[in-house]
Formats: sequence, structure tokens, C-alpha cells
Amino acid sequence: MKIAILPGDGIGPEIMAQAVKVLNVLGERFEMESADVGGAGYAAHGHPLPPATLALAKSADAVLFGAVGDYKYDTLARALRPEQAILGLRKELALFANLRPAILYPELAGASTLKPEVVSGLDILIIRELTGDIYFGKPRGVRECPDGPFKGEREGFDTMRYAETEIRRIAHVAFQAAQKRSKRVTSVDKANVLETFQFWRDIVTDVHKQYPDVELDHMYVDNAAMQLVRAPKKFDVMVTGNMFGDILSDCAAMLTGSIGMLPSASLDASNKGLYEPSHGSAPDIAGKGVANPLATILSAAMMLRFSLGKTEQAERIENAVKTVLAQGLRTADIFEAGTTRVGTEEMGNAVVKAL
Amino acid sequence: MKIAILPGDGIGPEIMAQAVKVLNVLGERFEMESADVGGAGYAAHGHPLPPATLALAKSADAVLFGAVGDYKYDTLARALRPEQAILGLRKELALFANLRPAILYPELAGASTLKPEVVSGLDILIIRELTGDIYFGKPRGVRECPDGPFKGEREGFDTMRYAETEIRRIAHVAFQAAQKRSKRVTSVDKANVLETFQFWRDIVTDVHKQYPDVELDHMYVDNAAMQLVRAPKKFDVMVTGNMFGDILSDCAAMLTGSIGMLPSASLDASNKGLYEPSHGSAPDIAGKGVANPLATILSAAMMLRFSLGKTEQAERIENAVKTVLAQGLRTADIFEAGTTRVGTEEMGNAVVKAL
Ligand SMILES: CC(C)[C@H](C(=O)O)[C@@H](O)C(=O)O
Ligand SMILES: CC(C)[C@H](C(=O)O)[C@@H](O)C(=O)O
Repeated sequence: MKIAILPGDGIGPEIMAQAVKVLNVLGERFEMESADVGGAGYAAHGHPLPPATLALAKSADAVLFGAVGDYKYDTLARALRPEQAILGLRKELALFANLRPAILYPELAGASTLKPEVVSGLDILIIRELTGDIYFGKPRGVRECPDGPFKGEREGFDTMRYAETEIRRIAHVAFQAAQKRSKRVTSVDKANVLETFQFWRDIVTDVHKQYPDVELDHMYVDNAAMQLVRAPKKFDVMVTGNMFGDILSDCAAMLTGSIGMLPSASLDASNKGLYEPSHGSAPDIAGKGVANPLATILSAAMMLRFSLGKTEQAERIENAVKTVLAQGLRTADIFEAGTTRVGTEEMGNAVVKAL
Repeated sequence: MKIAILPGDGIGPEIMAQAVKVLNVLGERFEMESADVGGAGYAAHGHPLPPATLALAKSADAVLFGAVGDYKYDTLARALRPEQAILGLRKELALFANLRPAILYPELAGASTLKPEVVSGLDILIIRELTGDIYFGKPRGVRECPDGPFKGEREGFDTMRYAETEIRRIAHVAFQAAQKRSKRVTSVDKANVLETFQFWRDIVTDVHKQYPDVELDHMYVDNAAMQLVRAPKKFDVMVTGNMFGDILSDCAAMLTGSIGMLPSASLDASNKGLYEPSHGSAPDIAGKGVANPLATILSAAMMLRFSLGKTEQAERIENAVKTVLAQGLRTADIFEAGTTRVGTEEMGNAVVKAL
């Protein structure tokens, strides 16, 4: 089984090294091949998603991705900026289903800015559609305003859109995920204002007929943002579009206070996927050996489960992470008085040892 | 001075009655005229924004709005649903600048789901553009997908757009508001993905040149949602588009835990405005006399300040609200052990007495 390893920028290489170490001690034979992506791709090959990197990702059974982005690339033209690699990989690999768990580990409840009783035991799965919506819709650009009160002046514009098939397939993912959990799905839209999301609501409602064992409710995105802050534990599986999912999944991740712990999976129709930590490239702490590798290690576990069919190995990793937390080991981002502060490598070694 | 009074649905009439009572004891002469809006407009005249209501709103110097919406209108065609009244009023009155303070009163710090040290003293002003963006952009609808992999099937679509003038004028509102506060503006966009918001960023940056005394920073909307949860007090004035503002202003309001306290103003270019509480119509508690009238009373205060030029009277009301809180009076939504629970009318009377 071939895994494409794309460390990227900032803390990417450091945290990826720990995940690779963990994969190497499982006693499985993985073929792992690395390539440059993001700013590193631009620096080495003039493009954030170099053709060789894309070819590797396409040929692999799964992609393990670190993080991309660094201040030094902020002034590049948009098409060359590191994050274009992420958008390009999603589109080229047709990774339409983004699974973002927001889980609060009991030992880390104190890290949240929310009161412990509001968040302890939090376990939400946000399913974000990842290849449609206003992220890719055309036409888009800056043009002369064609009509209305601002006719003739410049305007920026984009197209939001969802085709029926795109909504159906992500709805199936959500209902099937819910069947393995508490059988409840909240579909988040803005059907009261947007045609795209009135259509979304109609199609999700239709797909729901095939899942009579799952409960479905619809919620407007503004209300969803409020309810995430007010009573996040009321949610179980949340499904939404690309743009709303971008905002809500980050909001939900931050509720836990420990975004350094949260993995993510982006899957295509046959469960091939790209796995990456939910956090960013943190260029301010890059190279210091203090970054938390656990989200990347847990992303590797998700990869084993969803793309490589190795559920048992996935569980071994997840249990090892629980063990190191129980041992009181903490990287700087989740450190509290009474626990033991460790660096990136020590944390990786501790997981290896727990395995 | 003429004030249009639009109570609306649910708790709207109850909370509006208290605000009107407060306005009546200020010793000023206001001409107040009421009209049906929302579900009440539909029930009485077949449309959520009946022509007579719109005419009244246009002829008045300011509009005081309660809340609209009720389960019983959920099955109406979209064009007839209560919230269309809000969208219609915004557009027809050109109310492009929505001011949404998120303030946590010290006495109510316990009501927040966030830890007191994270939110106590919170005082953010969110400025949301209100007549542009994907809310009104055309074309929109459901059509046959014109190209791409889903060509020929149905798709829902909408147009996001901002013309230069629209961005300039809201940026001026934000910078001028910041000049009266701590001189810091955070402009929230999604310039890394959307053409509309790269254009937004460019124009806001350009307008900023006229306000050298104000500090400007740009933040992506997903990060803004995270930072609101992580460290909300770092924000002062936040300016953003209609769609992102819808989500972030509700999120910020909920951080306070006391959305029943939060007023809002929606202004046109000459400071004529519509004023409404940030909360909804709460049909589940309508008619029970338990709703919190303070957000509506504080909306009346904003109206006095921004549209009617009565700063002193606005301050009198705001101080009266502080007084009743200090007296320990609480409606059900903000009640805690050790305080005195009062109903809608008692709360209104207490404010009148404090005046
Ligand atoms: C970097 C950016 C394009 C990306 C997105 O908006 O999808 C990121 O925020 C994410 O959520 O993975
Ligand atoms: C009711 C709805 C159309 C409205 C909006 O989305 O603007 C509401 O959520 C608001 O924020 O005032």
C-alpha cells in the first residue's frame, strides 16, 4: 500500500516526521513516498502543487498531508500561494467529503475557553462538502458591474452552486456516518435566503427517505453558529456545504480548545483520501520542536481506518494517544500546571512507546 | 419626529409595548405609528411587508422593529415568509450598515457558556454590510447545470457580489466607528478563495489610507470564527460582508450568553435607520409575559442616538437599564440564583421607574 507523504511548510515537516515514525512501528509494510507541497513546492518547483506531487498523490492509496503556508509567501499572486495546493488536491482527487471530528478529550477539558460542563464529553462529527459551492463555482472575478445602481463600476463576484448529485452524495455520507453513531444528522443551510441552500434542503430531505432510522433536522447557519457556542453537545453529525463548513468546522474545533489534537479526512467516492491535521502550519513556532504532532498522528489513524482498511491499527494508534494523555504528557499548546511538558519528538516517541 | 413601530410576530408585540412605554416617559414628543409586519402582515394583508407598512417605514424618521417569524408560517412559499419583510425593508430603505454590538454586562457574566475571564468586559462592535453580497446578487435560482461534470442535471445557484461603492461606504462606517472607540478595525473576508473578498480586501485597504489614526488588520472568516471563541476580547470593531456578518454577529452575540440584551441598528447613508433586538421572535414563549424587553428598549436608545440626535436621552435609557440590572432584576432568560425573576412588563416598568 502506497502512502504519499506531503509535509508542506511551517511545522509540517516536524509533525509529519512523528506520524511517519508511528506508521513505521505498526508492523505493516507501507510504501511511503514524500513530495514538496505548498510553499515548499513553490520554492523548489515554482508551483504550490508541482505536477510530480499531484502525480504521486494520484497514484497513492492515501495522502498524508502536514500543513501549508508561511508569511513569506503572502505576497505571491493568489494562484501561486501555498493554500492553492490544498484546493488543487481536493479538486483533482475529487475529495468531496471532508470529515472533521470535534472531540474533547476528558484530560484536556481545561484547555477550552468554554465552561467544562458545556464542553466535556464533546464529540461532534462535521461533514463538510469539499469540492463544490462558491469555492469553485464559475463565473467569478472582477468585472464591470453589469446593471443595478452600481452599473459601470468595478465589482468582485463569485458563483455559489450545488448540483443535485453533489448534494446527494454528501448527504449519503452524512446519513451513513450517523448510522454508526447516534443516528442524528443536522443539515446546516441558509434556505431562507439562498436558492442554492433551499435546493440543498430539498435534496437532503429527499435522500433522508432512504434512512428511516436516522433523525434529520435542518438549521440555518447563523443559528448553527449560535448553538455551537450555546450547547455544542446537542449536535452529533452536522452536514453542510463547503463555505459554511469551513467556518463551522473551525468554530467547533476551537470549542475544544485543543485544535492541536484534531485530525481530518477528505474522501473521494471510493474512500481514497487525504488526511491532515485541522490546525495550520504555525510558521511562528516552526523548527522549534514544540508543535503538537498528535493531530497528524491521529490523521494517520483515520487514514488506516478509512482508506487502508486497517481498523485495528487505527484503534491501536488512538489508544496510544489516549495513553500518553493519561500519562500527563503535553506539548506547549495543551500544557497545564500539573502535567509534563514535552516537545514534538518526545511526544512522538511516547506514542511509539505506548504502541 | 415620526417613529414607525413594527411589532411583528411572537414576542414582538410584548417587548415592543415596553419600548414604547419607555419612549413615552422621556418627555419628548414623538409621533409613533404602528403597522403589521412579518407573519402579522401576511395574516392581515396577505404579504409580510404590506405596501402600507413599507410606506410608513419610508415616511418615518426611524423604524423600531420587534421580531418576525412563527412556526405557522414555515410552510408558506419563500416570498411570503415573515423574514422577507426584513430583507425587503433593508433593501427598500437602503439600510446598508448594520451595527451589532456584542456587549457583556458585568452582572451577566455568569450567563455566558464561556469562562468569565474569557468574556468579562467583552465589548465588540460588528459592522455587517446589509444590502449587498449573496443576499441579493443575481442571477440566482434553480436551473439546468450549464457545464462541467454535472451538466444537464438540476443545480441551485446564487451570485455573490460587491461593487466598489458598496465596500467603500461600509469601510468608512467602520473606520469612523473605530475612531470613536479604540481605533482598531478587523476586516473579515475570505480573500484566499473568493474573488469578491479579494476585491473587498483591496478596497478596504484603500479606504484605510484616509484613516491613518486607525489600525486595520485583515482576517479570514474561518479564523475569525475561531478567534471569537478563543479570545473574543482581542476584537474591537469588526467589519464584514452580509453573509459572513450574519454568521459572525450571531456567534459573537451568543458569546455573551445574554442575547436578550443586545440591540442592533441598520442605517442608511443619512443615518435614517431601523432598530431591532438581535434575538428572534421566540414563538415558544410568546404571550406568556416572560420575554426580555431590554434588547428592544436598548434598540430604542440606539435609535435616539443615531437617527434622532438625542444622545442624552439614549444615555438615560442605557443608564436605566444598568440600574435595573444592578437592582438584581432578571427576566427568565438571564435569571440566576440570587437575583429577582421578573416578567416582561415588570422589567419595562422597572426601566421606566429608573428613568
Ligand atoms: C486554506 C483554505 C483554502 C482552506 C479552505 O478554506 O478550505 C482552509 O481554511 C481549510 O479549511 O482547509
Ligand atoms: C431572517 C434572515 C433573513 C436574517 C438574515 O439572514 O439576515 C437574520 O438571520 C438576521 O440576521 O437578521
